Amino acid sequence: MVPTYKYNPVTPELVAMLRDIAGKGNVYTDAEKLETYSHDETDAAVYGHSPEVVVLPQSAEQVAQVVKLANKAKIPITPRGAGSGLSGGAIPEYGGIVISLEKMNRLLELDRANMVAVVEAGMVTNDLANAVQAEGLFFAGYPMSLQTCVIGGNIAENAGGGKAVKYGVTGRYIIGLELVTPQGDIVQLGGKLVKDVTGYDLKSLVIGSEGTLGIVTKAVVKLIGYPSSKGDLLVLFKTPKEAIDLVPVILSKGLTPTSIEFMDQLSIITSCKYLNESLPYENAGAMLLIELDGNNAGQIEMDLIDIGKLCEAKGAIEVYVAEDRNNIERIWNVRRNIAEAFKVSSPVQSLEDIVVPCSRIPEMIPELERMGKKYQVQIPCYGHAGDGNLHATLVKDPEMPMDLWKKNEDLCLRELYQVTGKFGGKISGEHGIGIKRREYLKDLIDPVELELMRSIKTAWDPNNIMNPGKIFL
Amino acid sequence: MVPTYKYNPVTPELVAMLRDIAGKGNVYTDAEKLETYSHDETDAAVYGHSPEVVVLPQSAEQVAQVVKLANKAKIPITPRGAGSGLSGGAIPEYGGIVISLEKMNRLLELDRANMVAVVEAGMVTNDLANAVQAEGLFFAGYPMSLQTCVIGGNIAENAGGGKAVKYGVTGRYIIGLELVTPQGDIVQLGGKLVKDVTGYDLKSLVIGSEGTLGIVTKAVVKLIGYPSSKGDLLVLFKTPKEAIDLVPVILSKGLTPTSIEFMDQLSIITSCKYLNESLPYENAGAMLLIELDGNNAGQIEMDLIDIGKLCEAKGAIEVYVAEDRNNIERIWNVRRNIAEAFKVSSPVQSLEDIVVPCSRIPEMIPELERMGKKYQVQIPCYGHAGDGNLHATLVKDPEMPMDLWKKNEDLCLRELYQVTGKFGGKISGEHGIGIKRREYLKDLIDPVELELMRSIKTAWDPNNIMNPGKIFL
Repeated sequence: MVPTYKYNPVTPELVAMLRDIAGKGNVYTDAEKLETYSHDETDAAVYGHSPEVVVLPQSAEQVAQVVKLANKAKIPITPRGAGSGLSGGAIPEYGGIVISLEKMNRLLELDRANMVAVVEAGMVTNDLANAVQAEGLFFAGYPMSLQTCVIGGNIAENAGGGKAVKYGVTGRYIIGLELVTPQGDIVQLGGKLVKDVTGYDLKSLVIGSEGTLGIVTKAVVKLIGYPSSKGDLLVLFKTPKEAIDLVPVILSKGLTPTSIEFMDQLSIITSCKYLNESLPYENAGAMLLIELDGNNAGQIEMDLIDIGKLCEAKGAIEVYVAEDRNNIERIWNVRRNIAEAFKVSSPVQSLEDIVVPCSRIPEMIPELERMGKKYQVQIPCYGHAGDGNLHATLVKDPEMPMDLWKKNEDLCLRELYQVTGKFGGKISGEHGIGIKRREYLKDLIDPVELELMRSIKTAWDPNNIMNPGKIFL
Repeated sequence: MVPTYKYNPVTPELVAMLRDIAGKGNVYTDAEKLETYSHDETDAAVYGHSPEVVVLPQSAEQVAQVVKLANKAKIPITPRGAGSGLSGGAIPEYGGIVISLEKMNRLLELDRANMVAVVEAGMVTNDLANAVQAEGLFFAGYPMSLQTCVIGGNIAENAGGGKAVKYGVTGRYIIGLELVTPQGDIVQLGGKLVKDVTGYDLKSLVIGSEGTLGIVTKAVVKLIGYPSSKGDLLVLFKTPKEAIDLVPVILSKGLTPTSIEFMDQLSIITSCKYLNESLPYENAGAMLLIELDGNNAGQIEMDLIDIGKLCEAKGAIEVYVAEDRNNIERIWNVRRNIAEAFKVSSPVQSLEDIVVPCSRIPEMIPELERMGKKYQVQIPCYGHAGDGNLHATLVKDPEMPMDLWKKNEDLCLRELYQVTGKFGGKISGEHGIGIKRREYLKDLIDPVELELMRSIKTAWDPNNIMNPGKIFL
């Protein structure tokens, strides 16, 4: 249920003004284009909504002018990166103006001396990763979907991904931001600085705020040296519990894998079927995929052996060291294609993103099974075990009538989130709240915390024009 | 100049209510006690101010009750950790109530499975470090002054320190907080979670907010495995520029020292004199002290050799590998005692904390020399070169009349901060703004950014009772 905030419609006069600001060819109003900007990677049938106009600015100044105009005219704005989000953050639920950053996609500066890249927010994260790798540098904060996503979107959602065990999430590497505030001012937060306590950390507040506190137009990205070596381990277990129990054992030995990915049996089998892959682990109850990187191949090899021994000592069925890039890619391919595989087996689903303390994952697994049975949905579980972030996904049985699915999905999500909370977890680790989870968030979050968030939103965006309806209404 | 916010005086009735809340023995009003709580590590003669009453609560609930009372009575509150701050953050400039967290100093939980410690805010950071080290774990976010400081103070200032090159600052390790809001509500932010994008990152907003957005009563601290080995390198250079130029060279090779500390000639000589130390580097123009840690002694040795070679190739006069803990301690002792040494040579000084992009440090050094001559003050420079954080310190010539010093100090600080800004830097990397730097901040910060900060403060603390006057007026 969408509350009826009072916004004004986009008029032909306003469209003309937008064309004056951004250039004639950079303002779309035709139905086909509007459709493109009406959804992200969530289900368009459920969450999609058309904007009234799309603007493609080419500078922060143009973004600021559009925002000022929207404030004056009381028209909602939805900032958009690649539209690859998984919670509806880029969907213009109230119509109005979509500001797409796609034309602000340049690498402005690669500052080797400070190991920093300055990029426009619309730059494809993968392009950034490649550009800095060519210089021997590494952007360690990128998420798994890096082939499509853009850095501005990564910042808006504080994207996570598979490398967060060792490297942390996107936010750790964003040391400066250029922000167009909800009032249309341009402000520089942070800078090429590793430390900075000069007033409140507004940069960190903006990171992960899903475009509700302004539009990021530029980012200062901290880089590190590109690790020259990698090594991978695939470990099979009888049960998810045995797999998960290994995580703190590994980490507390001072061994810090880049990734510790977890897949349950259902995920493995579904992805293998989808890929027509015959790796010999279809009958394992769970598996861990562990990657290490660094600059010393010998050290990585030793660490892999140590981890392998720890796994064996704790009852692993089998430990495979992937000895060539080819085999490693085969394994990672299974992991990466789980979501896609389930989409094919049943396109109607709810891709979730819960995060719990690592130690509680083993308790979460039987809960997922229980809820799956109770609500007659499959709930495969996979994700980033090393940081407790699980993409438990509710998958509709193709036979189930749609209205029953909707009812059960809702009930099951409520229960899933409640159990997550009971385990000290939260409902989103890296995908964000967006539209998809705001009704649930409202019921789960401490009202005091919600009010603290709201009060910032109101203070910064009194007209509530900046991505309204995301996170909370 | 302190603006006259309208607060009410602490009455005997209020003192009685505070005694009811915290217990009779935990409320101080006698002059001697009040004096103790009237200053931090800044110059008491310049910044000190007595509170009207000091309360030592033993629980978050008690803190909340005091805050509610203060709101109702319109009395300012100043939260206090160890009082080891360097910017006046714990000074009760407007009198009122000091809430000292000293009795909330327990390690509540050491959760090995999640590698997390849950601590009360008044716990001495060094005690935490020792307690977790006994379990083979490491709190990597602690600052250099760890013998006295407490974790709540580290959080309030987002303390940095010497290990930030590799490990980052305090904030990176604080994954959860219990906060008593300025309105007296208790709220839990974050948790035992490595990733969390469930709404705005209020935790990061609170970290470094210098007690102006509430009182942290509990922290969830992320731990890592304790590194079993360490190695140190002392490198002498003819000029500061040569020393500093090495920093990005080292980091971009994928070598990540724990610390890269810098000392200029004046700092080295002064500290050596103070310590009666005769290490053979008094005539070097600058030196770097580089530390590595990890779990593989052989790897550390190899990295030290690689760094040594890089230094030699870039013109270092001499590279010393400290081969035993004794020698290492001797060297670090020189570094740690610089501030103290200058305090002895001249107690009147202004310890600064500027941070600039690493690449700009070489340009900063001649600027410091120029300003020192212009304003007739010594400006030794030392600090954390690996992250651009320099404790350039204005030291009064004992012969200079006090009024001339005050005038010159002010003019010199203004110029120092302006140059810092010109180089893309900020005026505080780890000590905070507090009272000491707020007048300068006001003139240097983008008014839009300041207004964004203020608007949060006003929204959260409408009565402006929570540590008023810190960061901004």
